[in-house]
Amino acid sequence: MGEFELIRRCFMQEQTGAGVINGIGDDCAVLEVPPGQQLVVSIDTLVEGVHFLPGTAPAQLAERLVGAAVSDLAAMAATPAWITLAVTLPQADETWLLAFSRALSQRCSELGIALVGGDTTRGPVCVLSAQVHGLVPNGQAWLRSGAVPGDRILVTGSLGDSRGGLETLLQPLPVSAEPEAVEQLRQRFYRPEPRLELAQSLREHVHAAIDISDGLLGDLGHILEASGVGARLEVDQLPVSFALQQLYPQQVQDWALAGGEDFELCLAVPAAQLSSCLDTAQALGIRLTDVGEITADTGLQVLQAGTTVLGDLPGSWDHFRSEDE
Amino acid sequence: MGEFELIRRCFMQEQTGAGVINGIGDDCAVLEVPPGQQLVVSIDTLVEGVHFLPGTAPAQLAERLVGAAVSDLAAMAATPAWITLAVTLPQADETWLLAFSRALSQRCSELGIALVGGDTTRGPVCVLSAQVHGLVPNGQAWLRSGAVPGDRILVTGSLGDSRGGLETLLQPLPVSAEPEAVEQLRQRFYRPEPRLELAQSLREHVHAAIDISDGLLGDLGHILEASGVGARLEVDQLPVSFALQQLYPQQVQDWALAGGEDFELCLAVPAAQLSSCLDTAQALGIRLTDVGEITADTGLQVLQAGTTVLGDLPGSWDHFRSEDE
Repeated sequence: MGEFELIRRCFMQEQTGAGVINGIGDDCAVLEVPPGQQLVVSIDTLVEGVHFLPGTAPAQLAERLVGAAVSDLAAMAATPAWITLAVTLPQADETWLLAFSRALSQRCSELGIALVGGDTTRGPVCVLSAQVHGLVPNGQAWLRSGAVPGDRILVTGSLGDSRGGLETLLQPLPVSAEPEAVEQLRQRFYRPEPRLELAQSLREHVHAAIDISDGLLGDLGHILEASGVGARLEVDQLPVSFALQQLYPQQVQDWALAGGEDFELCLAVPAAQLSSCLDTAQALGIRLTDVGEITADTGLQVLQAGTTVLGDLPGSWDHFRSEDE
Repeated sequence: MGEFELIRRCFMQEQTGAGVINGIGDDCAVLEVPPGQQLVVSIDTLVEGVHFLPGTAPAQLAERLVGAAVSDLAAMAATPAWITLAVTLPQADETWLLAFSRALSQRCSELGIALVGGDTTRGPVCVLSAQVHGLVPNGQAWLRSGAVPGDRILVTGSLGDSRGGLETLLQPLPVSAEPEAVEQLRQRFYRPEPRLELAQSLREHVHAAIDISDGLLGDLGHILEASGVGARLEVDQLPVSFALQQLYPQQVQDWALAGGEDFELCLAVPAAQLSSCLDTAQALGIRLTDVGEITADTGLQVLQAGTTVLGDLPGSWDHFRSEDE
């Protein structure tokens, strides 16, 4: 079976979705953006041996790829619309491709995003790029640049779990590790859960937003830089899971601050909207935590029990710099 | 210099373009599709050692990546709008990135497409994916599926040159090779010229279209399959360059039929529009050649001097099957 036939079999089924005039199978997909909506787009890549371990199950890769990419749409308060894929593989393994495409289709369906195009090529290692396309009412996309002094800093979910999940894959488990906790952290690593519904519900209340892919410190730093402001972060307020505390009590704080790849949202919200935002999150059953304040003084202060924690906090996730990618 | 700073320096300058509300530097770009226009998108990948030789100059890679990707927009009769990039590299080499991004910026500017986003990651070999976004008036995108019996089959430019250019890089040059001919074929390999202006000028006259990336036989085959028709191709009519004839007289026919990566257009045009289309092309100074006819009988017949050429023609470019990728 050649490339064309394989791709057709794996990816060309059930390719329908709102605004899809013409999906996979032509030189381009033809898409329709509804009046009054802007298009938001983002591209993300996963590389074998860098972002995932060789031998990772294709279904887990598909879920991680789509979840991480769609999280960028959540960070703009956008509604997912369409996704395209560039898949580079050492060989055209039918079993792998079928498992990957089945999980991809399932996860895309759950997240309301339609696969509309792709390119499959051969290469020495697996490299997966996904471009996501979302829609947002004109002028309502969240940017990083809108934070103002006095805004509260909110984060969704819990932080550091994905880094903990990775640790369970890289190192022998702690002797006291509970299997459910291990599984929970691994799921957080493999299956990012974009905070779409919450983002859409809070769309009008948020000054600035980013998704936490490089670690809270690094990503909050991007908001501060883009907005020309600073922040005070209360380290004791950071939301962490029982699972992470159970398995890695020594690393909880570092990983919550800079573990990376949690794909939670970090929001800057006017103080007057804080309780309304918290209520909305509670109604949706999503944890949303106030972890600090935007300040007029630039720079990022991390406080613990009222004291500034100085210096040696781990840096953000940097694909060309960090040692532990 | 870390990833963020490097990317900023290389890719974040002069990122403006029509419809770009917010370009590089946020979780997503924010884009505006004008009323009455549809969005067309396509993603393409180049892999080191598969689509280009290790050590290829970064400027040549940038030109090839952008040209090949934008060619898919020409094949839809679309106007280029925006491009995003996923760049995987063994290391963050500043010299490489600066040369790549400078050539990229130059070529994007020439083709009228704005860089609006990207992702840069580390990996064992260079893998480059580009997603292009174009605009086309509602309902006017060219598809592969509109060919009808009696349509003339037209191709732009000359065929087989890119394959010839690759040969000059892979094998010792023929003893009689003229340097200008070598250079001309290499340019055709490294620097695809999307037929944007011609496509936009012929937009209303064309029944079906594809760009020739896999070779004429393979790509015309896609039109036939999508349209449920067949074709007769006159091999003596295929447009070939003097340079290709000078360097590789024995391979001209095979490479014109199945060399791949020419990024010319193959069009199915109503016979009544033929002379008007040829006139338009002549006025634009672009070679456009009538090479055959769409037939009601399915299947692709290749004729030479009135006789059907049987059997052993080379197959189309297939990244997972061919031996010479």
